[in-house]
Amino acid sequence: MGFLSVLSMAHKWIAERTAPGDTVIDATAGGGVDTLALAQLVGPKGTVYAFDIQQEALDRTRERLLSSAGQDKLPAVKLVLENHAHMAEAIDSHHAGQTAAVMFNLGYLPGGDQTVITEPASTIAALHAAIAVLRPGGIVTCVLYPGHPGGEAEAEAVEAWAAQLPQSVAQAVTYRQPQRPAAPYLVAVEKRSAS
Amino acid sequence: MGFLSVLSMAHKWIAERTAPGDTVIDATAGGGVDTLALAQLVGPKGTVYAFDIQQEALDRTRERLLSSAGQDKLPAVKLVLENHAHMAEAIDSHHAGQTAAVMFNLGYLPGGDQTVITEPASTIAALHAAIAVLRPGGIVTCVLYPGHPGGEAEAEAVEAWAAQLPQSVAQAVTYRQPQRPAAPYLVAVEKRSAS
Repeated sequence: MGFLSVLSMAHKWIAERTAPGDTVIDATAGGGVDTLALAQLVGPKGTVYAFDIQQEALDRTRERLLSSAGQDKLPAVKLVLENHAHMAEAIDSHHAGQTAAVMFNLGYLPGGDQTVITEPASTIAALHAAIAVLRPGGIVTCVLYPGHPGGEAEAEAVEAWAAQLPQSVAQAVTYRQPQRPAAPYLVAVEKRSAS
Repeated sequence: MGFLSVLSMAHKWIAERTAPGDTVIDATAGGGVDTLALAQLVGPKGTVYAFDIQQEALDRTRERLLSSAGQDKLPAVKLVLENHAHMAEAIDSHHAGQTAAVMFNLGYLPGGDQTVITEPASTIAALHAAIAVLRPGGIVTCVLYPGHPGGEAEAEAVEAWAAQLPQSVAQAVTYRQPQRPAAPYLVAVEKRSAS
């Protein structure tokens, strides 16, 4: 059967912690594949924010959403042309601390400008913001690309960030393929429930 | 909800690839907790081998099996006082290449003699043997204890072994908690189906 891909594992872990009507964030809209999956997950009563710093990515995401089947089962998706490091300010204030999942799929826009890449400093700032907007029990998933230009440093920065998170704040896990050190891998963080 | 523990993830991945009546191997019987779980998984028509180099471990495993509820739902478990590096010769020849899962839980026997530990060389030999006895699509799980004496070197040896496995032979994944570098973690390997 094979093990789940890192992207499928990210979607599975998000789905296990998300219900119809929830609020979720695609921190890296890119071509919109994950945005559409998140929209289908939360359904017409849910809320999806999709962030990207490139208008082209948001255009492609909008097109993908509009051309998908089952429009009546999708929520209105809020496309935000903004650095995801500012997500906490960009979302409606009543969604802060109430978000079920924030998904990061780092690296560059497939088929787009490969010089426009996520940078470690803003990625880490965005991960901090993501934890802040999550509800207790919510999840951040981060698919890392150590084989991309600049991707290894970014992956190391994200893993170091996850490693230093106090366990009282969140629990982190990694899922990786040791035979393929340059292949994408997954860091996932679940915010602790209030105790 | 929290992420699955590494041990629960090992059992889950094994269960996904195992059916009643199958043959499975506990390569490190220890106190018999995993042996019992494997016996329940394959049921009365299955076959379970449990290896340990300590008679005390096999005695405790036998006791746990005998004292568990639902005896009629358990197979006869073959307790083998032998280094697991010899598993390929120790099992019935018709189980070679037909085994659904081999489970390793390394480190020392809880409450037992902590000077009797698994050693990298025989562990790697046992992992090779485990791949050999698996059927295509079968799985080896290996829970590593980098926080135990000698455990870090062993964990590194196992990861290096998994990393060098040709992808045409098997697919390897790791599941780990970056906040807890000394905590147990999981290396799992699925044997490729014949193509």
